[in-house]
Amino acid sequence: MPLYQLSKEGIILFENLRFLDTTLRDGEQTPGVALSTDDKIKIATALDDLGVHVIEAGSAVTSAGERAAIKAVAGLGLNAEICSYCRMRTDDIDLALECDVDSVHLVVPSSNLHIETKLKKDIRNKQDREDVLRMAGEVAEYAKAHGLIVEFSAEDASRADFKFLKELYASGTDNGADRLCFCDTVGMLTPERTFTIFSELSYSANAPVSVHCHNDFGLATANTIAAFRAGAAQGHVTINGVGERSGNASLEEVVVQLEHLYGMNTGIKTKNLYQISRLVSRLMNIPVAPNKALVGGNSFTHEAGIHVHDLVKNTASYEPISPEFVGRTRRIVLGKHAGASSIDLALTELRLDANPAQKQEIFKRVKEMGDKGLRVTDADLQTIAESVLEIHCEPTVKLRSFSAVSGRPSIPMASVILEVNGKEEVCVDTGNGPVDAAIRAIRRAVSSLGDIVLEEYHVDAITGGTDALVEVTIKMSKDGKVITSRGARTDIIEASVEAVINGMNRLI
Amino acid sequence: MPLYQLSKEGIILFENLRFLDTTLRDGEQTPGVALSTDDKIKIATALDDLGVHVIEAGSAVTSAGERAAIKAVAGLGLNAEICSYCRMRTDDIDLALECDVDSVHLVVPSSNLHIETKLKKDIRNKQDREDVLRMAGEVAEYAKAHGLIVEFSAEDASRADFKFLKELYASGTDNGADRLCFCDTVGMLTPERTFTIFSELSYSANAPVSVHCHNDFGLATANTIAAFRAGAAQGHVTINGVGERSGNASLEEVVVQLEHLYGMNTGIKTKNLYQISRLVSRLMNIPVAPNKALVGGNSFTHEAGIHVHDLVKNTASYEPISPEFVGRTRRIVLGKHAGASSIDLALTELRLDANPAQKQEIFKRVKEMGDKGLRVTDADLQTIAESVLEIHCEPTVKLRSFSAVSGRPSIPMASVILEVNGKEEVCVDTGNGPVDAAIRAIRRAVSSLGDIVLEEYHVDAITGGTDALVEVTIKMSKDGKVITSRGARTDIIEASVEAVINGMNRLI
Repeated sequence: MPLYQLSKEGIILFENLRFLDTTLRDGEQTPGVALSTDDKIKIATALDDLGVHVIEAGSAVTSAGERAAIKAVAGLGLNAEICSYCRMRTDDIDLALECDVDSVHLVVPSSNLHIETKLKKDIRNKQDREDVLRMAGEVAEYAKAHGLIVEFSAEDASRADFKFLKELYASGTDNGADRLCFCDTVGMLTPERTFTIFSELSYSANAPVSVHCHNDFGLATANTIAAFRAGAAQGHVTINGVGERSGNASLEEVVVQLEHLYGMNTGIKTKNLYQISRLVSRLMNIPVAPNKALVGGNSFTHEAGIHVHDLVKNTASYEPISPEFVGRTRRIVLGKHAGASSIDLALTELRLDANPAQKQEIFKRVKEMGDKGLRVTDADLQTIAESVLEIHCEPTVKLRSFSAVSGRPSIPMASVILEVNGKEEVCVDTGNGPVDAAIRAIRRAVSSLGDIVLEEYHVDAITGGTDALVEVTIKMSKDGKVITSRGARTDIIEASVEAVINGMNRLI
Repeated sequence: MPLYQLSKEGIILFENLRFLDTTLRDGEQTPGVALSTDDKIKIATALDDLGVHVIEAGSAVTSAGERAAIKAVAGLGLNAEICSYCRMRTDDIDLALECDVDSVHLVVPSSNLHIETKLKKDIRNKQDREDVLRMAGEVAEYAKAHGLIVEFSAEDASRADFKFLKELYASGTDNGADRLCFCDTVGMLTPERTFTIFSELSYSANAPVSVHCHNDFGLATANTIAAFRAGAAQGHVTINGVGERSGNASLEEVVVQLEHLYGMNTGIKTKNLYQISRLVSRLMNIPVAPNKALVGGNSFTHEAGIHVHDLVKNTASYEPISPEFVGRTRRIVLGKHAGASSIDLALTELRLDANPAQKQEIFKRVKEMGDKGLRVTDADLQTIAESVLEIHCEPTVKLRSFSAVSGRPSIPMASVILEVNGKEEVCVDTGNGPVDAAIRAIRRAVSSLGDIVLEEYHVDAITGGTDALVEVTIKMSKDGKVITSRGARTDIIEASVEAVINGMNRLI
């Protein structure tokens, strides 16, 4: 039964679409990623709050630690159905049962390639074919007999013989499977093929059919939507599209497309999307590309001059949705492409008045920095503006010297000599590392200036040699005012000290 | 005229598809990115070698530095047509002419939203409508009169009145425009809408039509392919999908989909794709997500045990294309999901023999590390294996102590006391920073061991506080043998020293 209907205008109206989130299973299979039980609890709780219908919490067979984590998630009393991945083996089902899950995602090989590799059988041989169908049915029956909801899933279905695939699904539903799933295991579907396949499957199958897309060619999201358009009842997704190889369909992309491009109310709390994206990125230690749709660092950031000019007049001109929809805010940055309007906007924020000639000069200097390949931070703009406006702002905090020492065996320590409002301050501190020690020493030295909070300390990934340029960006705040600042040096300690002192001078 | 034909089986056969790469223009408009002339030359040369047809080298109006860079690219004598972005102004065309480009990407507003914001006109008013059409035509004519190839491009076309859009295109072609372009400026097309639009445009327009897609909802690639399927003649793409906000259509995704999913020979040297992806990421300082299709760090990396087992038997089971197709190699890593086969494979590579009970124990310990949330590097596996196999491998290099100092004013320096083959070595060196100094000192101390090369030094982005855990991963080689190793400490210097010494012991 398809879960959509056509309106009079031929527009597809989706109904009751469901989402199975597999961030904690397929997502965790990202090479190098391993979540602790605590991490899984945090992510599962956030997913439940977001409104996903099923949380695939892991694969019980993986290890004892994994089972403890799944069991902990199942014990949280969440609204979502909690699910474990299982292979076509009754002992996998037994291990899932130990974890007290509601359901199993029972994955059976369906392409002859996978059947030959995993089961050493060939479905072109009648006996083998019947054996596979029987084995699959038996495991489904076993799971049902033990009280589990069964999602009966065909692995590598996009390379399976379609007639065999339908027989396989029938063996699942005949033995009690509650849902079926079509896995595009190596991500080779196109939206057109997906639509054709689901147009047939969603009518002919005896249970709702899920779609599970991989992103090897960059089509996981588009294929998931195509399946929904053709009657798929549930989509398997992950936060940030994490997952093996090139990942799975992105929850945030699929949901926001349905809401904005297909006019559907998914029931997902879209305002939580950015927050959960950050949580998963942090706990899995998988960076999100700046140009990732909706949740990337740049999705709602604007630099180019012309655009900022138009944005100020009408935000819709260069934004398809408002950043608030996914729980974010707009960011304007300056650089080589900055136009006069972005400079105006930034100067207003700095509460600096400039006449047209001065603005032109500030504009020119920002562009020169950009032409040299440099980013222009808030602190840089302030320096340029003050120099052009001939504001002799003696910096409140000046660095005279610093020294940081680290070693083994020894405790990292640092000393700084600062001039704070003309008065020399000498401070020393230890830390978890030499950077930490240096920043602690600086904060001691400026304690007379009030409560300055280091909100964020970020170092871009360093790749290349040990002599590569290290770029440190920090966010600091004082009494509600927030600024960003930067230091870039080959020495990470010097870069950090520079960023913090520049930032303090801007704040005060 | 559509540039495809239907085969007897209803399969679309593309012909003479072209690619305009805008990495150097729309890609460079990524907030915070600015390329030097040298960078642009490097990327343009690589793009030309890759086989793209048009290189949009920048926007001449941006700055004097930008014009110098475009002119330098135009002077390289590449095969590709070199293009500058221009707004609907003859002075923009004049600046492009200064750069000696072959062509202009002449962008005119087409939606009423953009026309009202930019031109203060309203096309529902007959006079305004005629004014816009006339102005657009005049600029096209001006560019043609000055010998330029003109790609006449409708900005925000996906929100334009379709009838007006066709009039606008006619005013372009009537005034000599060689090509037209449909810009989905805020990325709100779906593959279905794109197909419908291009089915009409590619037949009715008097010139070949390009498609320019943005990725705000994650559909840039799918929409570009949909346009090609409906007769688009040229796709605008960028390497790694870089570009404003969530970026543009990814060249690598579009090309590899056409080649593998639609059976087309694009003429692009796909074996260069990974190399150019790394070049652009490095020069623009825009990281590529590990789960990016085809060029992400994990696209051809495998961890999960079951999969590696099957991969060993048949690489097709979990890889849709061979990594070599895009100039890459396969990588197998160990972790919490590792299966017995991955351990076998790794032990064979280490040339260690283990009996089944020992393998089981190694397997268990690897999983335990994974359960704790740790990655398992080559060096970790070696340590585990040696401990289980009771190989008392006294490490060749032992760290007794080190000390690193940094400061201002002063030169970063470090000293180490190592035991190398039982002999004490004391060495000191300076460096670009304390990490660099420490690694140089270590390399001096072990110079007796032969030529050990530090191939790669990588630090994951550090986010959070200055006391966050820093994870250093290195790749080292000696006489053709390559290994990876890791150090994780809150002190970046200690983490680096640990990684390098672990790695050396594995290499020797």
